[in-house]
Amino acid sequence: MNGLKRYFPIAQWLPHYGRDVLTSDLLAALIVTVMLIPQSLAYALLAGLPSQVGLYASIAPLLIYAVFGTSRTLSVGPVAVVSLMTAASAGQVASQGTPAYLSAVLVLTLLSGLMLLLMGIARLGLVANFLSHPVISGFITASALLIAASQLGHLLGIAASGHNLLELMHSMGTHLSNTHWPTMIVGLSTLAFLYGARRWLKSGLIKVGVAARPADLLAKAAPIVAVVGTTGLTWALGLDQWGLAVVGNIPASLPPLTLPSADLSLWRELFVGALLIGIVGFVESVSVGQTLAAKRRQRIDPNQELIGLGASNLAASFTGGMPVTGGFSRSVVNFDAGAETPAAGAFTAIGIALVSLTLTPLIAYLPIATLAATIIVALLSLVDIGAIRRTWAYSHGDFFAMLVTILVTLFFGVESGILAGVGLSLILHLYRTSHPHAALVGRVPGTEHFRNVERRRVETDPHLKILRIDESLYFANSRYLEDTVLALVADSPQLQHLILACQAVNLIDTSALDSLEAINARLGDAGVQLHLSEVKGPVMDRLQKTEFRHSLSGEIFLSTFDAWQALHRQSPIQMSIPSDEAPPASVRHSSKPGTPQGDNV
Amino acid sequence: MNGLKRYFPIAQWLPHYGRDVLTSDLLAALIVTVMLIPQSLAYALLAGLPSQVGLYASIAPLLIYAVFGTSRTLSVGPVAVVSLMTAASAGQVASQGTPAYLSAVLVLTLLSGLMLLLMGIARLGLVANFLSHPVISGFITASALLIAASQLGHLLGIAASGHNLLELMHSMGTHLSNTHWPTMIVGLSTLAFLYGARRWLKSGLIKVGVAARPADLLAKAAPIVAVVGTTGLTWALGLDQWGLAVVGNIPASLPPLTLPSADLSLWRELFVGALLIGIVGFVESVSVGQTLAAKRRQRIDPNQELIGLGASNLAASFTGGMPVTGGFSRSVVNFDAGAETPAAGAFTAIGIALVSLTLTPLIAYLPIATLAATIIVALLSLVDIGAIRRTWAYSHGDFFAMLVTILVTLFFGVESGILAGVGLSLILHLYRTSHPHAALVGRVPGTEHFRNVERRRVETDPHLKILRIDESLYFANSRYLEDTVLALVADSPQLQHLILACQAVNLIDTSALDSLEAINARLGDAGVQLHLSEVKGPVMDRLQKTEFRHSLSGEIFLSTFDAWQALHRQSPIQMSIPSDEAPPASVRHSSKPGTPQGDNV
Repeated sequence: MNGLKRYFPIAQWLPHYGRDVLTSDLLAALIVTVMLIPQSLAYALLAGLPSQVGLYASIAPLLIYAVFGTSRTLSVGPVAVVSLMTAASAGQVASQGTPAYLSAVLVLTLLSGLMLLLMGIARLGLVANFLSHPVISGFITASALLIAASQLGHLLGIAASGHNLLELMHSMGTHLSNTHWPTMIVGLSTLAFLYGARRWLKSGLIKVGVAARPADLLAKAAPIVAVVGTTGLTWALGLDQWGLAVVGNIPASLPPLTLPSADLSLWRELFVGALLIGIVGFVESVSVGQTLAAKRRQRIDPNQELIGLGASNLAASFTGGMPVTGGFSRSVVNFDAGAETPAAGAFTAIGIALVSLTLTPLIAYLPIATLAATIIVALLSLVDIGAIRRTWAYSHGDFFAMLVTILVTLFFGVESGILAGVGLSLILHLYRTSHPHAALVGRVPGTEHFRNVERRRVETDPHLKILRIDESLYFANSRYLEDTVLALVADSPQLQHLILACQAVNLIDTSALDSLEAINARLGDAGVQLHLSEVKGPVMDRLQKTEFRHSLSGEIFLSTFDAWQALHRQSPIQMSIPSDEAPPASVRHSSKPGTPQGDNV
Repeated sequence: MNGLKRYFPIAQWLPHYGRDVLTSDLLAALIVTVMLIPQSLAYALLAGLPSQVGLYASIAPLLIYAVFGTSRTLSVGPVAVVSLMTAASAGQVASQGTPAYLSAVLVLTLLSGLMLLLMGIARLGLVANFLSHPVISGFITASALLIAASQLGHLLGIAASGHNLLELMHSMGTHLSNTHWPTMIVGLSTLAFLYGARRWLKSGLIKVGVAARPADLLAKAAPIVAVVGTTGLTWALGLDQWGLAVVGNIPASLPPLTLPSADLSLWRELFVGALLIGIVGFVESVSVGQTLAAKRRQRIDPNQELIGLGASNLAASFTGGMPVTGGFSRSVVNFDAGAETPAAGAFTAIGIALVSLTLTPLIAYLPIATLAATIIVALLSLVDIGAIRRTWAYSHGDFFAMLVTILVTLFFGVESGILAGVGLSLILHLYRTSHPHAALVGRVPGTEHFRNVERRRVETDPHLKILRIDESLYFANSRYLEDTVLALVADSPQLQHLILACQAVNLIDTSALDSLEAINARLGDAGVQLHLSEVKGPVMDRLQKTEFRHSLSGEIFLSTFDAWQALHRQSPIQMSIPSDEAPPASVRHSSKPGTPQGDNV
């Protein structure tokens, strides 16, 4: 792919853009625009920002993503988890509602955009791989619960704030006696309506004869009905005069041009928050993008996605917006509605811009409680109890990482949660690879093959031991290797040659090289020669340049059989006594599901 | 080993303690005591503490380590790097010289003791493995440079302070015009004397006929000569009246009983610092202990060492001390001087206690500049330029981790340095394993073996591909696996069966299981059956319980040959065209050093 098409994916589809595609994209854009209006307002509220910021963040970023993004159907804009993280980060340097808070959000957006852009240029798309699935899943479930809790106050008309569950619950408890009844009635009935529509509307419509696709779209339009209904009711009955909180007057305008603060101390304070917002947003976006792309046998390029999302966030920071990424629900709607190219996103941006210019007076009477109910119901799909159950069944270690992520997120906040989850996944992986499997092997009689002495009857030699190591050697297991080898030598008084069979060693890092040098020296003291066999090409290339290569007391053999032939003394051959006889090769057969299987190596 | 002997290693050697061993231990204790006096005072100075704290920390901890430690020759007490880290951590909550600072140091000591003890009980000795050698080596080199820089002020008689090189240099530059000439003369001449003695005294003595061992001990006594000489000179000439900073009056007493503060907010502020002090101290101690133990074919138990060092630090925190660990230079001297059991350490403790009670009036005239010169020369052995060069030659990645550790330590301080190093080692490891090697394999004609199609002429079948994966599957590479498999399928229009050969897969974590499920589903859409072969026992046990086991479109075969026999159609066999013909088995031979070797798998 040439440079232009790689960095400007728009060049791949725009030249072939035809009339059919235009129709599909326009229809999808219309549907997504209608859905996005309440969502954008709600996520701005969640991030502690004036409602119009959500609209502004759904204009320029979509246009920019259409130029730089590689997903055909991803819809970019404010999303729930990132909005919550924005509130948590910006809340650490300023109070919601102050100009300093707005300024902090713009800096967060700018920084996370810059970081994503730089990561994209450095081709670091693989950072998305460093978040394990249990950690992502746990983090999203916990965030959804935290967001739902943060919206309960709006639903009851009381002031409740906090960055973790304890703070929120405590704050809510303090204010519970001030519950505002009109707000509660609007909030809870909207919640009941939205939940009911989500649960039963589609199947109900199908039952009365509506086709599946329109039934699905109608069910998804329920939030619009709730918004229009409660806004109209508030206007007609003057509920805002009774103290029902509403969105209020929004200036009817296009997004303003804004210049994020260049205060470096503010940048430093928001650095970690911006990094986490960028990475979490990127991971969510890539997951959604890959899932949708695979359905149409398309592909997305994670590195170019970093550039696309980075540029989108830069655009948001200069147009009075907030951090954006590819959202799950909006992208699925876009895909289902038939979007075929990023032009659908650009048309959506134009739709939102028209709304910002013309319809904002109508939004003034929209109750905050309605938005809170919309958020809470939208979050239900993110709480994945099944994933928790499956993870527990498959791996207690992974479940533990997930559980810690959930608990830390709920009780210490989103930043601590994601950091704890990532840290724990890494430690778990190190722990798992820090005790590599190593087996003494012997020769299968009459062949060039060597198998575990505990599993097969194989030829062995008390002067010559062959240790097969089943893991790459690196810092987390290099000391364990030393211990294993030295214990083996201590137990083998007749030993003269030790061969490390390295067919499963894909890497030897500097720490492991130090350990091999130490092993070589200590075996030398004990009068045992150290040999290597089956060293892979790339590993061998590195070893050639080292002092170890020259100080090695023995040789490096191409195959273990070469080593056996060269070093095996013509003493009477001993046979190993396997702890558990393996079946002979002639009766080995393909397995049936449910048949327990042994390690056949 | 029974519980008593395991948790109280003293029970292993005390019952057999004889007269010969007593003589050896007493002699070693005498030599170490003489060496430790200036060292303990100097490290207290380095940690920003009154000199006597260094002496106190060399009494109770040694007695306790003799009971709980597993190394026969490790000498526990204040060490340079840990003292520097103590100054950095305690300096964040209080100013040097205030009672709050002393109190912070006691809490740091208590916390790191508690953490080590808990880690020991939880058998977490393997945490030492998570610090890679390049990171440790880079950290120690950078710390040594930082410590040397921090002592330059004392050498010139000017006030210079700071927690990183920039702060130190800036502070020194500001005060350079105030250089105190008498201090500078004493400081620089002591430095020249100590450096000269270290460099030439031993070889000089051997040249004039002194035997090697006494020559070595005499050379190591140079610091004592410097201390006695400059102290005498200061007293005789009254240099302290000229403004030469001296240690001053130290109360002649045994260590006081102290109760560390129970202020939980202070504990929280010092938490990370205490953890890093504990782990870095533990790593240094275990490295020294293992090196010395191996020389005498003894072993140490890292988990029990955690308990021993934890208890020693607890003892230090209750007796007016500072964080302690097993030091490199003091342990080597103890070993060389012939110590045979931890009783030598206990005798050293008694020696230091006697000094604290009786000799402190003599120490009053000891110039601070002498201690600074002692520290600087002692650090020279820690700067390991050779390790930096070797690491660069062997692995640019490891060198990069080392370089970042050095730079961050120098310019952002010790805590940031060690955290950056550890983080980078982990990321580097994830990066290295995130692109696992995977090879298409075919059957070696007439055998049950399968080899890389690009390296051998092997039988292949366009309807059946066998992909061998050379790495455990986990979160960092699960997405890469998806990409690899889907790209393979996209390029193979005739494909009906894909077999993943898993002999090198030691682990499949939850993220990788999700990826296998996704691969299975997408291959199903494309009409390709997914099979596994050679799945290892423990991996198979886990898979049995999963939904994947039942949704898998194909089968799990015990061996790749079984899979080939079951799925290979009797169409004309195709032979692969290797990119580079491997030598036939008959001419394979053992390698000579210097012969380039290919990947023979």
